[in-house]
Amino acid sequence: MTAGDVTVFRDALFDAGVLVPTGVPGLYGKSKRFLEIFDGVYSWVTAAGCAARPERLEFPPIMPREAFLRTDYIRSFPDLIGSIHSFSGDDVDHKELLRVVEDGADWARLLSATDVMLLPAACYPLYPMLTGRLPVPGRLFDVLGTCFRHEPSSDPARMQVFHQREYVHVGTPVSAPRFRDQWLSRALQLMHDLGLSVRAEVANDPFFGRAGKMLAANQRDSALKFEIVATVADPEKPTAIISCNCHRDHLTGPFGIQTSDGDVAHSACVGFGMERIVLALLSAHGLDTSRWPLAVRGRLWP
Amino acid sequence: MTAGDVTVFRDALFDAGVLVPTGVPGLYGKSKRFLEIFDGVYSWVTAAGCAARPERLEFPPIMPREAFLRTDYIRSFPDLIGSIHSFSGDDVDHKELLRVVEDGADWARLLSATDVMLLPAACYPLYPMLTGRLPVPGRLFDVLGTCFRHEPSSDPARMQVFHQREYVHVGTPVSAPRFRDQWLSRALQLMHDLGLSVRAEVANDPFFGRAGKMLAANQRDSALKFEIVATVADPEKPTAIISCNCHRDHLTGPFGIQTSDGDVAHSACVGFGMERIVLALLSAHGLDTSRWPLAVRGRLWP
Repeated sequence: MTAGDVTVFRDALFDAGVLVPTGVPGLYGKSKRFLEIFDGVYSWVTAAGCAARPERLEFPPIMPREAFLRTDYIRSFPDLIGSIHSFSGDDVDHKELLRVVEDGADWARLLSATDVMLLPAACYPLYPMLTGRLPVPGRLFDVLGTCFRHEPSSDPARMQVFHQREYVHVGTPVSAPRFRDQWLSRALQLMHDLGLSVRAEVANDPFFGRAGKMLAANQRDSALKFEIVATVADPEKPTAIISCNCHRDHLTGPFGIQTSDGDVAHSACVGFGMERIVLALLSAHGLDTSRWPLAVRGRLWP
Repeated sequence: MTAGDVTVFRDALFDAGVLVPTGVPGLYGKSKRFLEIFDGVYSWVTAAGCAARPERLEFPPIMPREAFLRTDYIRSFPDLIGSIHSFSGDDVDHKELLRVVEDGADWARLLSATDVMLLPAACYPLYPMLTGRLPVPGRLFDVLGTCFRHEPSSDPARMQVFHQREYVHVGTPVSAPRFRDQWLSRALQLMHDLGLSVRAEVANDPFFGRAGKMLAANQRDSALKFEIVATVADPEKPTAIISCNCHRDHLTGPFGIQTSDGDVAHSACVGFGMERIVLALLSAHGLDTSRWPLAVRGRLWP
């Protein structure tokens, strides 16, 4: 999919101690330097969104299995899901479990599914709490979510666990696209002001399998989702760092969320890929933050 | 195990919008109010620990399966683990998966284990990166970890996902207990200064099964782990909000971590149960933070 060598940048991050390897691709410890940039980006995005007084919420990195199944994530991206399994046996079963572990065999098959799944997108936990009628003119949320996608990769921009900061609007078929368009131009400006070369593109999600090809074509043709891309690890192919997405009734419908008139509500969100923005900044301005442009430093750490 | 009714406090938190229910016990959305107290506690703990210049690191809520198995967590607490499974089939398998989902049958058995597990304790990801000899006088870390324990409960203090903020010392059999003792008294003072009635107790971990009874007795007798307890949801039984723990060579041994002399290193940690401290403060001072004692407000939000 990518042409450039993403391991050069990854190894530079390891050597400088910005990220710490764990032995599993896409799974890293974050250093103080990384976290300080992360916090700076978080505040910069807060400042851009606080005037509209969003309701701030944070959900855990897991969500109810039942709510997960009400979305169609398992149809579109089964290969990316994370299902959580645990041990529910007695003393005898435990002995058997430990024996299988010691034999180096597939001990995980002795576990059973819990009622939780890893969270695929930051806004998913919102919808179950909104069933019913919305107030006028809808609701606006500010959520930080810890998302999981099972896609081990040597590209440091493709982490298995990452943070999405989202502003989510739930309203009408008129207000949702307006929200998306407004944030698309605002987010471009925000990244430009941090010294990043960015542009918007129609999104290109990795839908699964043969049926997924049609979903991908639909996504392109309908132009409901845009991505803001910047150079991160791959010098030859920019990476999506922000997405601006009209969901139509895709998430509101399954959870019975209605406008004040009783019609099916529509939703839209802008999602900031926090780790990817941090990495784009490190890629653009270098690994030594003390040498970053003064204007950028002033915006991140006022 | 507990005598008091923990749902009174939980429902008060829901009614005030401090926590948002998700339908799964022990899994909640956190409001702005909750998060602001969380951030205040985080800064208060930072101020108490920063003079020793710890290395700050954050790891994801998942860790490598292989490193997980090198600890003995699966022996002691198999019922609390979270193993992550995903879909690795083709188009045909996917059709079968969706059919089983629609039938409401056990579709999770069609998944396969990934090479990651949910994180049971904040300091676990540290040890694999320390294999080899330590510098003198050891190393000191400041880690924030998102931990998972599969124990659905109506007690809001017993979340399935929670944050541990830990200072971790990795050094010698002499320096490790000294570190633990120093932090035990310091942590008591820190909580006292936030207006909490706290005391230290020998820890009482829920080891699994019949063999676990012996482990629990050992833990009590050796007095290696202390907990600082305060009243949270259960009016009749205080809850552990901080733990101070000497691991001896329990975690350093399996990962081949040595002192500068080539002996097996010892480790110790102080772990702040962040959500529990927030809840203890809400329990002690009420749900309206604007009415909290001025001295407490001044320490949390200087």
